[in-house]
Amino acid sequence: MKQFSGKRSIQLLGHILNSYGINDIVISPGSRNAPLAIHFSELDDFNSYSIVDERSAAFVALGMSKKTKKPVAITCTSGSASANYYPALTEAFYSNIPLLILTADRPSDYVDIFDGQTIRQKDIYKHHSYGDFQLLEDSKENSESENFDIIKKAVELCIDNQGPVHINIPLEEPLYNLVSEMPIFPEVEKTIQKKPYELPSNLIAEWHLSKRILILVGTRDFSEELEMQLNQLVKNHSVVVLSEVNSNLKHDKFFSHIDRYIFNFTDEDMRTYSPDLLITIGQNVVSKKVKFFLRKAKPKSHWHIDPFWQPDTYFALTEKIETKPETFFRLFLNKINLEPQAYYNLWDNLRDKKDAKHIEYCKKIGFSDFKLFENLAKTIPENYNIHFSNSSAIRYAQLFHFTQKNIYCNRGTSGIDGSTSTAMGFAMKSENPTLLVTGDISFFYDINGLWNQYIPPYVRIIIFNNGGGDIFKIIPGPDSTNALDEFILTKHNRTAERLAEDFKFEYFKVEDELTMERVLENFFQHSLKPKILEVLTKDVENAQILKDYFAEMK
Amino acid sequence: MKQFSGKRSIQLLGHILNSYGINDIVISPGSRNAPLAIHFSELDDFNSYSIVDERSAAFVALGMSKKTKKPVAITCTSGSASANYYPALTEAFYSNIPLLILTADRPSDYVDIFDGQTIRQKDIYKHHSYGDFQLLEDSKENSESENFDIIKKAVELCIDNQGPVHINIPLEEPLYNLVSEMPIFPEVEKTIQKKPYELPSNLIAEWHLSKRILILVGTRDFSEELEMQLNQLVKNHSVVVLSEVNSNLKHDKFFSHIDRYIFNFTDEDMRTYSPDLLITIGQNVVSKKVKFFLRKAKPKSHWHIDPFWQPDTYFALTEKIETKPETFFRLFLNKINLEPQAYYNLWDNLRDKKDAKHIEYCKKIGFSDFKLFENLAKTIPENYNIHFSNSSAIRYAQLFHFTQKNIYCNRGTSGIDGSTSTAMGFAMKSENPTLLVTGDISFFYDINGLWNQYIPPYVRIIIFNNGGGDIFKIIPGPDSTNALDEFILTKHNRTAERLAEDFKFEYFKVEDELTMERVLENFFQHSLKPKILEVLTKDVENAQILKDYFAEMK
Repeated sequence: MKQFSGKRSIQLLGHILNSYGINDIVISPGSRNAPLAIHFSELDDFNSYSIVDERSAAFVALGMSKKTKKPVAITCTSGSASANYYPALTEAFYSNIPLLILTADRPSDYVDIFDGQTIRQKDIYKHHSYGDFQLLEDSKENSESENFDIIKKAVELCIDNQGPVHINIPLEEPLYNLVSEMPIFPEVEKTIQKKPYELPSNLIAEWHLSKRILILVGTRDFSEELEMQLNQLVKNHSVVVLSEVNSNLKHDKFFSHIDRYIFNFTDEDMRTYSPDLLITIGQNVVSKKVKFFLRKAKPKSHWHIDPFWQPDTYFALTEKIETKPETFFRLFLNKINLEPQAYYNLWDNLRDKKDAKHIEYCKKIGFSDFKLFENLAKTIPENYNIHFSNSSAIRYAQLFHFTQKNIYCNRGTSGIDGSTSTAMGFAMKSENPTLLVTGDISFFYDINGLWNQYIPPYVRIIIFNNGGGDIFKIIPGPDSTNALDEFILTKHNRTAERLAEDFKFEYFKVEDELTMERVLENFFQHSLKPKILEVLTKDVENAQILKDYFAEMK
Repeated sequence: MKQFSGKRSIQLLGHILNSYGINDIVISPGSRNAPLAIHFSELDDFNSYSIVDERSAAFVALGMSKKTKKPVAITCTSGSASANYYPALTEAFYSNIPLLILTADRPSDYVDIFDGQTIRQKDIYKHHSYGDFQLLEDSKENSESENFDIIKKAVELCIDNQGPVHINIPLEEPLYNLVSEMPIFPEVEKTIQKKPYELPSNLIAEWHLSKRILILVGTRDFSEELEMQLNQLVKNHSVVVLSEVNSNLKHDKFFSHIDRYIFNFTDEDMRTYSPDLLITIGQNVVSKKVKFFLRKAKPKSHWHIDPFWQPDTYFALTEKIETKPETFFRLFLNKINLEPQAYYNLWDNLRDKKDAKHIEYCKKIGFSDFKLFENLAKTIPENYNIHFSNSSAIRYAQLFHFTQKNIYCNRGTSGIDGSTSTAMGFAMKSENPTLLVTGDISFFYDINGLWNQYIPPYVRIIIFNNGGGDIFKIIPGPDSTNALDEFILTKHNRTAERLAEDFKFEYFKVEDELTMERVLENFFQHSLKPKILEVLTKDVENAQILKDYFAEMK
């Protein structure tokens, strides 16, 4: 027999979420939120997932939403549980992933009177959410109609801003009054409206005056339309498009390995290659060097195209284009002429030179983190989703040519705290297999990301374990301090072997190049259990290999 | 050669913290906070500890401070790292543990411009800290004198309120300018002043008019003076003292197993045993039943004695006594007469009856969570510090008689998120051995609590693994829902065996009573490695045993 929560506020939540097509909820078990757990797991329209650790649960939801492009709800009990959601929320806030956070709470007059598991939950995420709401207890006057309005507003904000929105839900006892039938609620009248984008007329003239147009694409999902639009722009060499591995745009004429080309830019190079019009698309850019270059280059104009954020990343922003790039270019491409520009050839020559050096260097290098990434770029099957963790994984990945168009990394805040959970959440919602490539510190950090009974058998994890945060060794400075090993690198001797067994993954370990190649050959084949490959490069001079790489790319 | 950070703000921090006797710092490695890592690990006056996972690091610091009674500093890099401190901070906020949170940040004009690892750190803990500050970048005008004042104020607030205070530290590049000698800073003039407590005169009259005085002691550290003062009060039966296992007060005449005595109180019992004057001491009370009883009982007067919090937990508060109980009773005991009261005998008779039943019931029970706790109360050596996790562990512990006076549990927010880390932090600062008794869900949740290279060999962990959150089964309600196993109990088949090996603990597993007794005999003996004992009671009807216990205590 069906048993729904008798709480009116919870019933309303189910009704309204469903009306907006929100049907995934990640539940962290607890007592105060039991009414939500009972109710949502019983509703046919919802997929409920149980994840114990709230920090991981929120990242799992974030991964799910990255795939489904719809809000995912998360719910936890009262008290410090809600504080554990915070890291994923900051990521969702800056990378515009819609999460609807439903924190159960004691009745509002129980805050700060030393009842158990009670903190100040109201507005706890204020700095990093697109809305903070609190429902009325069922017993309060007009609670039903007020809660209806609050929930509707919260959901619409979540969808509209594609970001985290918080509803705090004080619940009175008894928590376990159940009903077998539910009331009929009024239909939800949706009020989200987007005003149409209008192209400012000055942009066309500005474009035609510019000879050196650079389009830089940051972190974003694959878009066939945008790829075609940018193809049209580069076809006859009228612009230079710089993209990153997680820009998910592929074209021979895009410059997709920024750091390969610009790492050693001298002051003179910065002048030579500087744009007069910079157009940026997408969110955070991984390459630090390109930020440094563009801040120095001081382009005359900088247009940023994004519906959510208009950051002045390069201290040169002149035009905020608050719409999707597809929408913008749909209008814009009809109004402009495309002229071949010498600026493209300048970059093209640079690329030829650097790509040749890159190939040369790769030939010289044996077993190492670097070599692993070179191999991965060649061996990961086309249909894989790839998640790179922060930050060595995503930085290495930038140097090689990955052909996949579903490449992800948590670059909203670039934290190491939820890469595994995010990838697992994504995998749970994808029909295609998902690979996570992660460094050892990120992997051990988010180990509860594997405490998840929904991990599909086609998940693959590759850990490059270099015995600590090797990435810090390539930054000049820390390598000369006494604190290096203990307080910056955090050297360790851990491996993932027993953890893999614990979480029921098949486990492979490689410590040399030949075995690595042999294992990678079969690693992506179908299997009944998910797999972990650990590449142990502790005894390799990974930092030196990377330093030498950049030195040779001069 | 010594290498200190060349950052003036960091040098100042070191100087001022040291002046106030703050000498422990837990460092989570990162790039932006490298100047702090380098600087503090180099200062002779500081003990620096490296803990990777910031969530765990903050709980480790909290555990250390529980032992040292001094502020412990924690520092992390910019971005979501700081959000991972939040759970421990809420605990520290409500249980008054002084933590000084030093978050490194990008320069303040880099927030929200999509630079890497940047969130809105300023005021991020506002709801749960006793002060939020931000330093000026070294390059800003008057930064040295202003930062001096800010740091001093922050440290004094942290000491004064015994709670978390946050200093956000924007740091400009270069981060790695090092110096071998440090400037001489002015001496710090301390300005913390406590005004002396004055006894309100009406309290003495009120005391003498009261025939039924109940003193309820919640979570607090052992205090010899307070124990003596309360002994004096109970000696001739003038008051009833209810205490809990983590009140750390022991006396034959205290009623130390509240739930044993009051669990089955009828409405009539509540009237019979109700106090006319309720005096509460210490912070959160574990027993839900005693809260229920006292809210129903509606005492005519309720005095709460605590220097930090004056919560109206029982909706009957009449007097806020804002000082330490020792201070209050030092003044008060001189002014009152102690008369024997029938109220004491009433409770004493109740106790005799219930204690006999308790002993009877224990005899009947075999291998189970319940039996484990009965055994533990008899076998843990006197010199052990005991940490109980939330919440089954601490609830079971309330039923038995532990003689130790260093018994702890995170009851500020009663979270399951940091029990292991807290116990490890405490152990790192204690010369005596430390035991953590924890349920399986809490243990797996805070598994990174064992990712800590400083765990002393005299640490012991006992996990009672009943295959999920068995505690929920004893609450009437959830046991009748379809969601029980997956979304409330979170049933699982995990054990700690491989994790123990991974973290280099000796590991013992028991699945029956005889082996349990045998293993416990030697478990507390000296060893070269810390030890984990896992008591597997998955196949035992633990919830039923507990339900039956309370039924038989009628």
